[in-house]
Amino acid sequence: MQIGTLAIVGVGLIGGSIGLAVKRRRLAERVIGVGRRQESLDQARRLGAIDDGFLELAPAAKVADFMIFCTPVHRIAGQVLDAAVNCSKGAVITDAGSAKATIVSELDGRLPRDVNFVGGHPLAGSEKRGPQHADADLFRDRLTILTPRRQTNAEALERVTAFWTALGSRVKTMTPEEHDRALALTSHVPHLLASALAGSLPAELSELTASGFRDTTRIAAGDPELWTGIFLQNQPQVLAALDRFDYQLNEFRAALLSQDEARLRQLLEQAKRVRDALGS
Amino acid sequence: MQIGTLAIVGVGLIGGSIGLAVKRRRLAERVIGVGRRQESLDQARRLGAIDDGFLELAPAAKVADFMIFCTPVHRIAGQVLDAAVNCSKGAVITDAGSAKATIVSELDGRLPRDVNFVGGHPLAGSEKRGPQHADADLFRDRLTILTPRRQTNAEALERVTAFWTALGSRVKTMTPEEHDRALALTSHVPHLLASALAGSLPAELSELTASGFRDTTRIAAGDPELWTGIFLQNQPQVLAALDRFDYQLNEFRAALLSQDEARLRQLLEQAKRVRDALGS
Repeated sequence: MQIGTLAIVGVGLIGGSIGLAVKRRRLAERVIGVGRRQESLDQARRLGAIDDGFLELAPAAKVADFMIFCTPVHRIAGQVLDAAVNCSKGAVITDAGSAKATIVSELDGRLPRDVNFVGGHPLAGSEKRGPQHADADLFRDRLTILTPRRQTNAEALERVTAFWTALGSRVKTMTPEEHDRALALTSHVPHLLASALAGSLPAELSELTASGFRDTTRIAAGDPELWTGIFLQNQPQVLAALDRFDYQLNEFRAALLSQDEARLRQLLEQAKRVRDALGS
Repeated sequence: MQIGTLAIVGVGLIGGSIGLAVKRRRLAERVIGVGRRQESLDQARRLGAIDDGFLELAPAAKVADFMIFCTPVHRIAGQVLDAAVNCSKGAVITDAGSAKATIVSELDGRLPRDVNFVGGHPLAGSEKRGPQHADADLFRDRLTILTPRRQTNAEALERVTAFWTALGSRVKTMTPEEHDRALALTSHVPHLLASALAGSLPAELSELTASGFRDTTRIAAGDPELWTGIFLQNQPQVLAALDRFDYQLNEFRAALLSQDEARLRQLLEQAKRVRDALGS
């Protein structure tokens, strides 16, 4: 794995963590950050996540041979298109967006011939925002999903795989559609439920919440802008996953309505088995 | 606050934590535990949570002047009735059950004249079980709800209030019905949702979960037996709270269906405000 200039577009929690991890492992000669606010770029530089900051995409694209987009999902495809025309031959572009099919299809056949895109999604993160929460170990022992198409350049896929492996992550390949169907169930619907639960709490009952409510709603503190984008980009799969959840919730409701003790216990035992298997 | 002999019925996480806290603060001359398994009692004694263990309720009731029931909610009322006939004059009985109206009404007018019951619920706990997870500080800076009736003996209420205050807890008084309505929203429905979410996860997607899914479903690892009891005892309020949640979930679903970006962001922002206010 050798990168000349790595450009990280969006130096928040994910982008900042990538920068810290790359610099600690000396995976690139130079790490540059691209952001909309000078303040964030300065902060990322002070934290040691990037060497230099750029407010514009074009000059960063011109000097980078490897670019990773860590911006909100609904901005990624447009930004990649803007960047790609400025990239030099052989540049590899990837991203860290939580929904993949829309991005990948928006880029299909629209990039310059010698610029290659590989969709990616590291399953790591936090409800926290900003480079001040960045962590060089955020991706260690985590899973990163890459979503190549049949037409994806094999060498670019190899470079992106090597990149995440070097950051300590395992890498798994799926189609963008498989990814989006799975993540709707494992991430997007949980976020929706946590938000609906937090949103349904009457203000006067805040003091009657304990650690259970706080755990269950923790991710509802995530960035509304970011999550609006994820939900809209993955809308059909999120709705389908919500139906699947609803089915299970209705099993609970039916058992409760009929006061079916054995069924209720069975449902709770099944849920406990699943949860216990995930570990803490 | 001075207790001669404190009897803790059920020496699991909550009972064990009460024992540790009482002994550390020297709030009772003697702490005895009542349990169904000698092994748990021995463990609680080794951990310093109790001085002696009893497998039977009657002999413990005879020597205790303050009893606290930390058994599953659906057993508490029956056990209190069994214990009360053996209690000496002036004994105070309380509990730590997560649903209150059924227990309190089952005991109404059925206790011996000089034995007083005050319903209680410390808002502290964990998905973990057993005295090995007990923590002397579990109740510090937490809230304990007491649910007296108009006819509840004032001195008994004072003693139970002093007990929890001495363990570091704040104490708030509510009617059993107010408690159950509130906790359905802040604890019981969150548990139901976490369990339904865990239960709806296809086995092959386990590896695609990250910290968000784990946080949101953490409480689904709780004891199925215990929670079956809570759900059934508080069934009407849990169903009503579920309807309230459903209303909010449908707001999200409608915004998603109509791809109403502004509304989705608004709902997520509202949820974030609520969650941010709760702290980590």
